[in-house]
Amino acid sequence: MHKMIDQDVASALLRPKSIALVGISDDPAKTASRPLRFLRAAGYAGTIYNVNPSRSEVQGEKAYPSLCALPEVPEHAFILTNSDLAVEAVAECGRLGIRVATILAGGFSESGPEGCARELRLRQIAEQTGVRILGPSSLGVVNLHQQLVLTANAAFAEPDLPVGGIFCASHSGSMLGALASRGRTKGVGFAGLVSVGSETDLSIGQICESTLDDPSITGYMLFLESLHHGEDMRRFALGAAKRGKPVVAYKLGRSDVAAELAVSHTGALAGEDAVAETFFRDCGIARVETLEGFLEALPLLAQLPLKNLRSTAGRKPTVGVVTTTGGGAAMAVDQLGIRGVSVVPPTDATLARLAERGIVVNHGGIVDLTLAGTKYDVMKAAIEVLLTAPEFDMVVATVGSSARYNPDLAVKPVVDSFGFSDKPLACFVVPEAASALQLLTEAGVPCFRTPEACGDVIAACFARRNPSEPAPAPAAPQGERMLNEADAYAMIAPLGVPHAAYAVLDVNQPLPDLPFDYPVVVKVLHADIAHKTDVGGVVLPVHDAAQLAEAMRRIIDNVATHLPHLTVDKVLVQAMGKGLGEVLVGYRRDPDVGPLVMLAAGGILTEIYCDRAMRLAPVSVEQAREMVGEVKALKALAGYRGRQEGDLEAVAQAVSAFSQLALQQDCQVLEAEMNPLLVKAKGEGVVAVDALVRTA
Amino acid sequence: MHKMIDQDVASALLRPKSIALVGISDDPAKTASRPLRFLRAAGYAGTIYNVNPSRSEVQGEKAYPSLCALPEVPEHAFILTNSDLAVEAVAECGRLGIRVATILAGGFSESGPEGCARELRLRQIAEQTGVRILGPSSLGVVNLHQQLVLTANAAFAEPDLPVGGIFCASHSGSMLGALASRGRTKGVGFAGLVSVGSETDLSIGQICESTLDDPSITGYMLFLESLHHGEDMRRFALGAAKRGKPVVAYKLGRSDVAAELAVSHTGALAGEDAVAETFFRDCGIARVETLEGFLEALPLLAQLPLKNLRSTAGRKPTVGVVTTTGGGAAMAVDQLGIRGVSVVPPTDATLARLAERGIVVNHGGIVDLTLAGTKYDVMKAAIEVLLTAPEFDMVVATVGSSARYNPDLAVKPVVDSFGFSDKPLACFVVPEAASALQLLTEAGVPCFRTPEACGDVIAACFARRNPSEPAPAPAAPQGERMLNEADAYAMIAPLGVPHAAYAVLDVNQPLPDLPFDYPVVVKVLHADIAHKTDVGGVVLPVHDAAQLAEAMRRIIDNVATHLPHLTVDKVLVQAMGKGLGEVLVGYRRDPDVGPLVMLAAGGILTEIYCDRAMRLAPVSVEQAREMVGEVKALKALAGYRGRQEGDLEAVAQAVSAFSQLALQQDCQVLEAEMNPLLVKAKGEGVVAVDALVRTA
Repeated sequence: MHKMIDQDVASALLRPKSIALVGISDDPAKTASRPLRFLRAAGYAGTIYNVNPSRSEVQGEKAYPSLCALPEVPEHAFILTNSDLAVEAVAECGRLGIRVATILAGGFSESGPEGCARELRLRQIAEQTGVRILGPSSLGVVNLHQQLVLTANAAFAEPDLPVGGIFCASHSGSMLGALASRGRTKGVGFAGLVSVGSETDLSIGQICESTLDDPSITGYMLFLESLHHGEDMRRFALGAAKRGKPVVAYKLGRSDVAAELAVSHTGALAGEDAVAETFFRDCGIARVETLEGFLEALPLLAQLPLKNLRSTAGRKPTVGVVTTTGGGAAMAVDQLGIRGVSVVPPTDATLARLAERGIVVNHGGIVDLTLAGTKYDVMKAAIEVLLTAPEFDMVVATVGSSARYNPDLAVKPVVDSFGFSDKPLACFVVPEAASALQLLTEAGVPCFRTPEACGDVIAACFARRNPSEPAPAPAAPQGERMLNEADAYAMIAPLGVPHAAYAVLDVNQPLPDLPFDYPVVVKVLHADIAHKTDVGGVVLPVHDAAQLAEAMRRIIDNVATHLPHLTVDKVLVQAMGKGLGEVLVGYRRDPDVGPLVMLAAGGILTEIYCDRAMRLAPVSVEQAREMVGEVKALKALAGYRGRQEGDLEAVAQAVSAFSQLALQQDCQVLEAEMNPLLVKAKGEGVVAVDALVRTA
Repeated sequence: MHKMIDQDVASALLRPKSIALVGISDDPAKTASRPLRFLRAAGYAGTIYNVNPSRSEVQGEKAYPSLCALPEVPEHAFILTNSDLAVEAVAECGRLGIRVATILAGGFSESGPEGCARELRLRQIAEQTGVRILGPSSLGVVNLHQQLVLTANAAFAEPDLPVGGIFCASHSGSMLGALASRGRTKGVGFAGLVSVGSETDLSIGQICESTLDDPSITGYMLFLESLHHGEDMRRFALGAAKRGKPVVAYKLGRSDVAAELAVSHTGALAGEDAVAETFFRDCGIARVETLEGFLEALPLLAQLPLKNLRSTAGRKPTVGVVTTTGGGAAMAVDQLGIRGVSVVPPTDATLARLAERGIVVNHGGIVDLTLAGTKYDVMKAAIEVLLTAPEFDMVVATVGSSARYNPDLAVKPVVDSFGFSDKPLACFVVPEAASALQLLTEAGVPCFRTPEACGDVIAACFARRNPSEPAPAPAAPQGERMLNEADAYAMIAPLGVPHAAYAVLDVNQPLPDLPFDYPVVVKVLHADIAHKTDVGGVVLPVHDAAQLAEAMRRIIDNVATHLPHLTVDKVLVQAMGKGLGEVLVGYRRDPDVGPLVMLAAGGILTEIYCDRAMRLAPVSVEQAREMVGEVKALKALAGYRGRQEGDLEAVAQAVSAFSQLALQQDCQVLEAEMNPLLVKAKGEGVVAVDALVRTA
């Protein structure tokens, strides 16, 4: 449905030569009066056409009664009317060949059946005429390199907006103002800011993708209320990764309540947050959890491009800390630690190199310069030694009160040793010290005002994974059907996922000899019965042929009682397996982000603890091993406290094999599950003893 | 060991009339030169005696060669020398009757055997002479109401330190500078700031307690690297609660790594963080996790004194949110939600009252005024309606970009409706808006710069519990001994904790008839064998007398193999119980915080997930019910997904009963455990099937 934006659309969106302001108001108190004022104040150099059916002049400028009365076809129309008039205006845009229409009004799919009808109409217009729509519920577009302040957001009344290299896209229009003001204080400057509204047509991914080759844009900030149009986003993320342009996302919906709120607020169905998290990581997008971190993240991400990200599979990323304040550094260490980043002590070799430079370190985990004193030479030497020590993935310099009263002592050496090696260097400033932060920011040194943002951004930086080309997306699914258990095995077995031996028996035929030993389990076999236990469709254990015959009768009776309309023809008889433990392996094609594979330990506690690992599918065996490492409950099968080890390598292989469902071309699998997959002792493999597949 | 500080000591510490600066330096580049300079700059009105054996003049002032050469005995000596000289100086202070000696130097118990010897000497001097010691590793004391800047902390070179009502005590001296500078920017002012160092003598609790009746002090901030001297802290917290003076703590060691760091940094053994968390909550101390929240917390805590804290047992605390920006408010809602605070929608009655005031709200969870417009009257009316709506424990106003360009619109109404009802009101300001924050701060309105601090502080505020008088502390334990399982039952049974029926059999006597039915479990009974399974000391199931005799023989053999020096005389035979699930109930007397009771679900996964609830002991049944609610795994016994319910009420009663061990006067229990306590079906109770008790 969504495709890349044409270059002329991108141009009309962000660099329009001419703009129509439809419904522009003469009343300065009205929201609909702002865009003209802001464009003029910013010195926009293109042509502005005011459209107002009831006035010939607006804010002292000529106004036209309608879009078709304009002397030329403008590239971009900003529609400031109510929702009904907006639909008409978009239709007019379509007829005239205006490339982009931005809609301020809400009142579409988030507002009941009437709104849904309006939105449907918008989609039809876009499809039929080729006009591209930004919004609805968009506060507009700002391109500071083009003096384009095409927005109704009151926050942009401020002069001297902070110009820089960041392109920021947001579901919430009002947040753009907050980000601009907070950015200004931090010395963070923007190239562009787009309020995408409900993404009815133009998606965040498409918009950002269209700017990838703009050399004035050095990084991206995404403020998201939900995650949709994952395909566009993934394409964008891949392009950004290739160009070494970092992307940071702040997404609402981390709490369940907030997820509900996002639904009601944008009318968009918020994807489950864990799915979004998986998506971001696999796309190489750093997802932060703090607002400060959101604004402070890009310099650090730029320091560690995805291609340089060393795999930390099987180990935590490591950070070396040098500090002039023990207490201050300990806060950062704490915040890193709770987010899974290890602050590791210097090795003996590194300590020796420090000693050569005259730096004797007293304490364990960090290089605390308290005793050596807060001096330029000491700080610089310590940082340089750490930046060239192999045990660290990153170095964090923490500066205490001297940052405030004398930045030359411990802040300047951070600036001066920035770039000393390929290893990223970041700085946490403990006191309130605006000029120190300015010094660091101007030099491009990643710097943090709070220990939380420091920990947050560093952890998010390491949590990214190098994105890969997605599997080709199949056509939108038409209808769907469940496979019965035997057909499900038949679909997954060729992928290399072992399942327990089984036989399908016709209930109306004499019992054959089983190709495996008793005891067995007997299960009803029917595509319409997904939850066999609920209808009495499972009997176990069954020890001999007589019990088998009896079990089949019982199942027929049970199902007849629960589902009288349904006739049982077949049962599946399966060898009973036993494992040290069990896991659930799931696969589904998410409508927003595409194919996903999940690994969770089986059983009720796992559900209570929500203990699982997820990835975009397909995954390699190596990636699957990482997933095994992420499921806490699987520690119990990893030799925990002397217990027998389970075959976790076989689990990883099964997860990887199962995830290849994403590549299935002949038949599109919507959802599949092995639950449970029994995990046997190390070296003895795994075996699926139930399977479920839903296909298109 | 530690007791309340005498009033004259408190006075000498924080309001000394005379001070000796021992080892004061003439060289302005030296740390040891600062206190004199800072005291003079601040205009300290008392007498300062400079003590320097090698100079007759320091910084243009007279210097004395030694403490005993002074014309009077000063109240307070700040010792700026190295650690060896410091010990001598403290001894001199003791001889002369100087009340308080503050030691700047480190090099005590954190620095190996030599340092430990120094520290022991300090303790002896304090005990023998009565001199009280602040530190070692103390950067000094600041009392801004007394112009006392008795510190070597370079950060206090700044003029016009922010004066106010907060008393701040910190393990880290350097953090005091950072807090003062950050406080200044936020309009947060301090009454006093104390760097307590390693608390060798004067503890944080004692120091803060001594200031409780100072009317210029309105609240307390504690920056902690570890938690020690819990008894003093608890006494202080109780006193603060009685006086309605709020206490907020920021404690390092939330991550394991940081805990290790705290050890190496202060030489103090950091208590396990969960123990500290329990302690803070039960003491009514709000523990925050963000640095910003630490500085922003006190106004909100003051709004909700502990005595007004409605019990939210069995339900989450509820917050009503009114906002001028949907996206901004959603960030706060998210941060509240992930910390267990619910943002609930207005009831129909409240919506009707809003409508009466002309406010129609479109969206679900929050009162979003976007449609109504950002206007003073609308905002004020909405806040007033919410402040008088019974469904909310607290109201949060979120203000968008208007806070920056026109605080009169949506910030002033927050100020003007502050105090409209008893319900606490807080404000989250979304853009960068220093003047709005200043307006709110000056009016005393709790306000937050980041959604994280907003969520953090509100959650910490509700997480507090009303502190109770502690059980009388017994004498320090002398030695310790384990009880065997039968003696352990004998100790806990009178408390009302049910255990499985058992009989103790002499292995050298003929088998008697058992007073309960087979099957049974047979266990070795010996005080020296805590882990019976490890030595083959448990046999089960045992179905008859012959098997019982065999089991006893087997146990004797097994133990003889594992512990050849030990003779088995007795076994404990116990009826085999069965439950729907099992829990672990633990008790221990922590050396730092005193008696604790813990509830955890049994089994390996629980250990992996670290799923438990803890309280200071003893606890009431109601408190124990809260604990049951906090253990996630117990959801499985609470009717989760239609499963059979366990007797969780009996669990709560057993936890409460077990926690009464804290009141045991005749015999001091150091540690005790029921593991497992079997949980039977609802109404059928619980039964301990193993117990362990260690007494003094």
